[in-house]
Amino acid sequence: MFKQLGLIGCGLMGGSFALALKEAGLVDKVIGYSKSPTTTDKARQLGVIDQVAESALLAVSGADIVLLAVPVAATDATLRAIRHLVTPATLFMDVGSTKRDVVDAVRRVLKERAPAFVPAHPIAGKEQAGVQHADAQLYRDRQVILTPIAQTDAGLVDKARAVWTAVGAHVQVMTPEAHDAAFAAVSHLPHLLAFAYMAGLLQQKDSEQFLALAGPGFRDFTRIAASDPAIWRDILIANREEVIKQSERFRGALGVLEKALQDCHGEALEALIQGVSQARSHWRLSSGARHN
Amino acid sequence: MFKQLGLIGCGLMGGSFALALKEAGLVDKVIGYSKSPTTTDKARQLGVIDQVAESALLAVSGADIVLLAVPVAATDATLRAIRHLVTPATLFMDVGSTKRDVVDAVRRVLKERAPAFVPAHPIAGKEQAGVQHADAQLYRDRQVILTPIAQTDAGLVDKARAVWTAVGAHVQVMTPEAHDAAFAAVSHLPHLLAFAYMAGLLQQKDSEQFLALAGPGFRDFTRIAASDPAIWRDILIANREEVIKQSERFRGALGVLEKALQDCHGEALEALIQGVSQARSHWRLSSGARHN
Repeated sequence: MFKQLGLIGCGLMGGSFALALKEAGLVDKVIGYSKSPTTTDKARQLGVIDQVAESALLAVSGADIVLLAVPVAATDATLRAIRHLVTPATLFMDVGSTKRDVVDAVRRVLKERAPAFVPAHPIAGKEQAGVQHADAQLYRDRQVILTPIAQTDAGLVDKARAVWTAVGAHVQVMTPEAHDAAFAAVSHLPHLLAFAYMAGLLQQKDSEQFLALAGPGFRDFTRIAASDPAIWRDILIANREEVIKQSERFRGALGVLEKALQDCHGEALEALIQGVSQARSHWRLSSGARHN
Repeated sequence: MFKQLGLIGCGLMGGSFALALKEAGLVDKVIGYSKSPTTTDKARQLGVIDQVAESALLAVSGADIVLLAVPVAATDATLRAIRHLVTPATLFMDVGSTKRDVVDAVRRVLKERAPAFVPAHPIAGKEQAGVQHADAQLYRDRQVILTPIAQTDAGLVDKARAVWTAVGAHVQVMTPEAHDAAFAAVSHLPHLLAFAYMAGLLQQKDSEQFLALAGPGFRDFTRIAASDPAIWRDILIANREEVIKQSERFRGALGVLEKALQDCHGEALEALIQGVSQARSHWRLSSGARHN
């Protein structure tokens, strides 16, 4: 399918993509670039990439497929570094968890070259980051959201869909706006709330004794509070408008529950809990939705 | 150790206690009472109880150990029903998730008979309620918090400790106030937040599409939102003062995070996440803390 993958960012997401393409026999050669030479060395030793590129631009040179797998805040600078080699002869994609900021950068930096770029968000991940955890199966049975814009080349969207499908993922197309609104609601806000909850707990002088009494409910509720600080700083800031909208909505719902509590209004409280408890009991993880 | 257990409430918690005592050879006979005759019939068929009592008072008659395993809101009425047979010759305990309301009811209803009652909170549970899920191992390696008051008989506290230890639990003694403050922080508030988060999500017209995109982070964060509405209505109302205090603290912490987001203050945001992420990564479930 492809001769050469240019991989920019050789971490868990990028490394897993390279391995998946290799395993599926979809690519002959992988050239990788990372900000840190230690990472590219490790990636080469592990057979994730075949050759180290000295720059992002050199990783693109000669590639017919390019994956940007860098933190979302680095998208702009990365696009600037490679834009001279961006043409629709090559499929360019990213793996960012937010999409409006990515398409803004694509429009701003790539301008008339924007059609070559197909924004993508594979809903996949692992607790541990780093190329040493790269896994050819990471995208199998996971959802991948593509968020093309008006000028995106339709042929490249089809190609992107084919690649992700070939590595076992289920592809959905959405607008960047719908994507960011949905993930603010089901992923970014829960992270913000888990961070806030832990912060409020840790401020208390008895927090150590409290934590010693915490059980499995606490464990599951706060698991996402252990997420990577730099990655979540970037995601929350990139999608801050939607996240703050969701947070306001949440505050409203919390206020209604608090009011029922303050008034000892048992019936209202039970009805509210009944509604959410039923909805949550019926919810099932979609085939593919395996995001952190 | 005991001749006869009087079990008031033959659900998961009570039924498991009866089975655990039987398995450990600590009791000769179990007499059970439940509000619903279907429950006692099932409990007898399953061998959880040996004999059905027609009332709570009759379950107490002749018992040298009595367990109240009823919803916390039913504590007062249950104590009224049995008070004439409450004497320190018998060990009386409950299993409620809140303790200030229980000791209030004990003082108010039992008065000079209060010394016979040792308030207890076994930190154990299962996703599914009901006597059919009763399990002799439910309390093994779990924490049990005893919250005696000034007038509680010290010999009965020792006896309570011995029983729970004999069924495999780890016993801690705390004041009812310290207990309720701690569980408001690590259990009741997370439930309130999970309920509020789900309520805010479900109000939105796109909630179905959003839910279809939700992944494992959402799954774990909202697991406790599927909890039993009547039980959680009672717990939250019984402990509302502490829960509202914790919720205010949480709102403060959320406000700080929102402010950092609104100001695009990446450094502050990352520092905040870094702190909670580290604390959460280092936290481990205590031996025994297996509460929902």
